[in-house]
Amino acid sequence: MKKILIIGAGRSASSLIKYLLNKSEEEAIQITIADLSLELAEKKVQNHKNARAIALDIFAVSDRQKEIEKADIVISMLPAHLHVDIAKDCITFKKNMVTASYISKEMQELDALAKENGLLFMNEIGLDPGIDHMSAMKIIDEIRAKGGKMIQFESFCGGLVAPESDTNLWHYKFSWNPRNVVLAGQGGVSKFIQEGKYKYIPYNKLFRRTEFMEVEGYGRFEGYANRDSLKYRNIYGLDAIQTMYRGTLRRVGYSKAWDMLVQLGMTDDTYTMENSENMSYRDFTNSFLAYHPTDSVELKLRHYLKIDQDDVIWDKLVELDLFNATKKSGLKNASPAQYLEHILAEKWALQPNDKDMIVMYHKFGYELNGEKKQIDSTMVCIGEDQTYTAMAKTVGLPVAIATLQILKGNIKTTGVQLPIQKEVYEPILKELETFGVIFNDKEVPYMGYNPNNVGS
Amino acid sequence: MKKILIIGAGRSASSLIKYLLNKSEEEAIQITIADLSLELAEKKVQNHKNARAIALDIFAVSDRQKEIEKADIVISMLPAHLHVDIAKDCITFKKNMVTASYISKEMQELDALAKENGLLFMNEIGLDPGIDHMSAMKIIDEIRAKGGKMIQFESFCGGLVAPESDTNLWHYKFSWNPRNVVLAGQGGVSKFIQEGKYKYIPYNKLFRRTEFMEVEGYGRFEGYANRDSLKYRNIYGLDAIQTMYRGTLRRVGYSKAWDMLVQLGMTDDTYTMENSENMSYRDFTNSFLAYHPTDSVELKLRHYLKIDQDDVIWDKLVELDLFNATKKSGLKNASPAQYLEHILAEKWALQPNDKDMIVMYHKFGYELNGEKKQIDSTMVCIGEDQTYTAMAKTVGLPVAIATLQILKGNIKTTGVQLPIQKEVYEPILKELETFGVIFNDKEVPYMGYNPNNVGS
Repeated sequence: MKKILIIGAGRSASSLIKYLLNKSEEEAIQITIADLSLELAEKKVQNHKNARAIALDIFAVSDRQKEIEKADIVISMLPAHLHVDIAKDCITFKKNMVTASYISKEMQELDALAKENGLLFMNEIGLDPGIDHMSAMKIIDEIRAKGGKMIQFESFCGGLVAPESDTNLWHYKFSWNPRNVVLAGQGGVSKFIQEGKYKYIPYNKLFRRTEFMEVEGYGRFEGYANRDSLKYRNIYGLDAIQTMYRGTLRRVGYSKAWDMLVQLGMTDDTYTMENSENMSYRDFTNSFLAYHPTDSVELKLRHYLKIDQDDVIWDKLVELDLFNATKKSGLKNASPAQYLEHILAEKWALQPNDKDMIVMYHKFGYELNGEKKQIDSTMVCIGEDQTYTAMAKTVGLPVAIATLQILKGNIKTTGVQLPIQKEVYEPILKELETFGVIFNDKEVPYMGYNPNNVGS
Repeated sequence: MKKILIIGAGRSASSLIKYLLNKSEEEAIQITIADLSLELAEKKVQNHKNARAIALDIFAVSDRQKEIEKADIVISMLPAHLHVDIAKDCITFKKNMVTASYISKEMQELDALAKENGLLFMNEIGLDPGIDHMSAMKIIDEIRAKGGKMIQFESFCGGLVAPESDTNLWHYKFSWNPRNVVLAGQGGVSKFIQEGKYKYIPYNKLFRRTEFMEVEGYGRFEGYANRDSLKYRNIYGLDAIQTMYRGTLRRVGYSKAWDMLVQLGMTDDTYTMENSENMSYRDFTNSFLAYHPTDSVELKLRHYLKIDQDDVIWDKLVELDLFNATKKSGLKNASPAQYLEHILAEKWALQPNDKDMIVMYHKFGYELNGEKKQIDSTMVCIGEDQTYTAMAKTVGLPVAIATLQILKGNIKTTGVQLPIQKEVYEPILKELETFGVIFNDKEVPYMGYNPNNVGS
């Protein structure tokens, strides 16, 4: 029997583990689920006979290496910066590895060593990154196969709340790490190219430069730009493309409201606030406003951000309890971002009966026989419950399917990779369809950014 | 004869050198002026018999050490990050040292070593930091001496253009490093305390939270907050103070206009722009605006920043030539901040007959015998010409005067210091008056932020 080691048993590993357990008889695999919390690992194993749960502190080097040595392939579901030590062990013990994370610089540096050892380190094979790469490359390859030339690629993805569970004014709940949502867009300019023009959006304008799109049956969404869209030109083989834009989807109105928090300075993670522990939510809000002996926090904020008294955006702030004078975070030495995350984690938690929703939207513009054409491709996936969320499903299933493909020797490539080759994406996308991850592609009139070739 | 080594002969060293040359007979000193450019050093020496000019590359360690060993005291007018190697040599060769820069962490770490060796490293003894510390401590000490308790301290300083040379819509020209002006306020939140409430202003709001003040005979100015006002509570011995705010002065209207450049993203120094070399000023501006095939850069910008067609702020952008389609920076791999600096350096250069102006404004609020009182203290200094600017005078003279005081043994303290002790500031402020650096102090009604003690 082949042995799979899964490190990290958090929420995003639920569907991954379930899939592999279900396949364990048929595929003759044994699964070890390792987590810092034995309880969490045991909960995921559910006494399955082909699986065992272990407690593992990945910083205990010899424990970690002992488990890696025993495995045939290693899946790391840890935060991205923790993959590299595991990857180095995988080289030592000659094991393949799979992660759903972006390829870090440190991971990329292991490419030559992995190749020398005939190993495959497959990364970016979750949802975003992951399904986005695979579903995009499938259509890009099809366009190329029929002789088309790509001129525009836009791609958006969002982890949202399902319409039936959408109960707040922000139309948003957390189906993944809240910290990443609070810090979204920080740490660098957002850059992309539109019709051959390089465009740069600073953080303070990012949430005011959204694009709208409709998904049939699900209504309207808005997208804001991801940090670096440019690097995917090279990875996707689209070096000469005129438009390349990757973004994040939210329900319409979220970004404009989020921008208020950005403008106030509440998303800043670079300093700690004095006495954050004993600060009420109201004190927190007031610390970003000018001092005045009598003006209320409410009026100061309205005036500062120029919010009309009948603007619904105001209710979004009130809904977060930002003017509550008694609630406290209790967080010591918190940055504004940490304090805000505390507020949002409570307000935007998925409730026991809530379902989440993943939405992906690709636009492919291309030229074929002198004609400009466009394909729009959309995917919506609704979660089952709080454990088997759409997020867990779309992140975990591609990892699980790829792991079996690699174990069975169906993927021949080596080195540090992401899923852009047909031999990788084709079987995975096909199997994902049986789990309801289905893309709806349609030819639409070419819209581009400049349909009439007007000079700018 | 005592030997003074001055490292760095740039514009800010002009008045410093002139002062020491003038004093060289009477004080029996010999001056060595070292600069990477021999020509620049020679120009400052003007064949004076008590001075010599030398070319010195401070990274040539043995050359540097040879000169430091020969000196009795060393003045470093280099950029702040270059002081530390010199300071370490000063410890090796047991020399006192003077700089006009903020005490860096690395400099502070030399405090114990300096004290062990009986050496004084006097820093922050230029204008700001420098004259601000000295003039503030003088009044704070006077208030304390008469039994008063400090409750409020605000301090503003600006290097501006003299009214007679104020010829642009921004009312600003460069009398010091343009790069520092472009990057002002970046790299951290601005924090201060007002009436016991901590306040934080993010960069994207910094230039919209100004305070106004009048200087008799010179009209109205505005101040925006410096990065960290809080640390001076401890340094000035004002730990319990209710209001502590330090800021930068500009002419009214500058900050609102500058904020447009911030909002666009033009001051960002964290990434380089594609093809910056061949980008026209207009392309530069357009790269921060959404793509459109026909809308003009002008209209896109007006709409983006909501600028009315009759708002004078628009003319400030036009004055900078930001819509010029033929002018290019020629800068390779420039960040937006570098590109912007290039544009501004040309537009805001001091012209041959221009004079600069330094303005300082302190507000001291205090309680004496149960009464709240306030002293406002202002200083305005106009430059002579492009070489002996007000900036060079106010930065260089305190350094020069302090250097002589130390050489003569009038300052007894050792270690890494800044000029907050009476034995240091008193003779310096007194001598500065003979050069026209005169503070105008007046008792005014206590304004504070909360004159009636209304609860907030």
